Amino acid sequence: MKKYIMLLLALCFAFNMSAQETPVKIVFDVTSDNVKVHESTMRHVKLMAKAYPESKFEVVMYSGSINMVVKNKSTVAVDMETLAKNANVSFVVCEGTMKRHKIDTSQLISGVTTVPDGILEIIIKQAEGWGYIKEGQ
Amino acid sequence: MKKYIMLLLALCFAFNMSAQETPVKIVFDVTSDNVKVHESTMRHVKLMAKAYPESKFEVVMYSGSINMVVKNKSTVAVDMETLAKNANVSFVVCEGTMKRHKIDTSQLISGVTTVPDGILEIIIKQAEGWGYIKEGQ
Amino acid sequence: MKKYIMLLLALCFAFNMSAQETPVKIVFDVTSDNVKVHESTMRHVKLMAKAYPESKFEVVMYSGSINMVVKNKSTVAVDMETLAKNANVSFVVCEGTMKRHKIDTSQLISGVTTVPDGILEIIIKQAEGWGYIKEGQ
Repeated sequence: MKKYIMLLLALCFAFNMSAQETPVKIVFDVTSDNVKVHESTMRHVKLMAKAYPESKFEVVMYSGSINMVVKNKSTVAVDMETLAKNANVSFVVCEGTMKRHKIDTSQLISGVTTVPDGILEIIIKQAEGWGYIKEGQ
Repeated sequence: MKKYIMLLLALCFAFNMSAQETPVKIVFDVTSDNVKVHESTMRHVKLMAKAYPESKFEVVMYSGSINMVVKNKSTVAVDMETLAKNANVSFVVCEGTMKRHKIDTSQLISGVTTVPDGILEIIIKQAEGWGYIKEGQ
Repeated sequence: MKKYIMLLLALCFAFNMSAQETPVKIVFDVTSDNVKVHESTMRHVKLMAKAYPESKFEVVMYSGSINMVVKNKSTVAVDMETLAKNANVSFVVCEGTMKRHKIDTSQLISGVTTVPDGILEIIIKQAEGWGYIKEGQ
């Protein structure tokens, strides 16, 4: 009898281990002007935000990826606006990059926020223990 | 006399420091469909696995790099099968990516293993203290 | 009166918080043969080195980016030579990559130094707490 209880406990424990989500925090770095990279980034964040609702995701766009956050230019505008409503997902763009491309905040997809410096934002997140994924070809 | 012994000890110590390998753990992130990226990744892992036999290397393939692990499609199949036999090298592919491209395990190069989620695998490795290298152009 | 002093103190504190730089250390990984990537890397390092003089920046070049450090081939030679004079910026190239491309040290842009293994250099920096940025498309 004791053997069966032990086995049952072990099974419960094993099941719990696999079912339980260990929350992660991921900062995604996007600098590409390639819309394929924009689209695969969105697919990654969309799938992960759904699969890991306790985790946090931040996509930082700077350098060549500016069009990804600009209304009427982005190929992922609809997905980004929808995803940005999730409490655990944020999309941020570098103000230096915006200035260089003469983009103001009124042109940004709804839900996108800004940071003074995209690279610094990523490095601060890394220092706070966030994992890092560079999106790109 | 004591001075010479000290000098000798210092030299031995310095020699030992430079000759000794400090083992590292590196996770490589490959998402490119560009065979040049597949080939340079293999070159990096091959050279490092030989130079640092006490270190550990894991190559995680997902998103656009699926062909890199598929028999008859990969341009690095021979090298991958050989390298995968090293105890300190592993090649893992994302099951989500396999599903999206309708690839089953029988089509994978021998020695390649799978993980449920490629990005999560990389982030877990980072959290465990592995270094991270994004392969790509 | 006390209220105004408190307000004044709060403003001073807030101003100090935003003006104060938290020094960071960043290692940039460049493997691309694309001159656009070389140029955006230089722009990033140039801007950050100026904005954050207490921070440290190291650009590691290996694999496909060899021309970035070769006199008469690099499109960023002038900027690199100038920036390399900053105490907080270094440009290092992988000796393995140099050997493979038959480049000797006399061909390197003034101020560029070498490391035996570019990837190992990056991983050691990460292990020492440096942030990591992969440059690329």
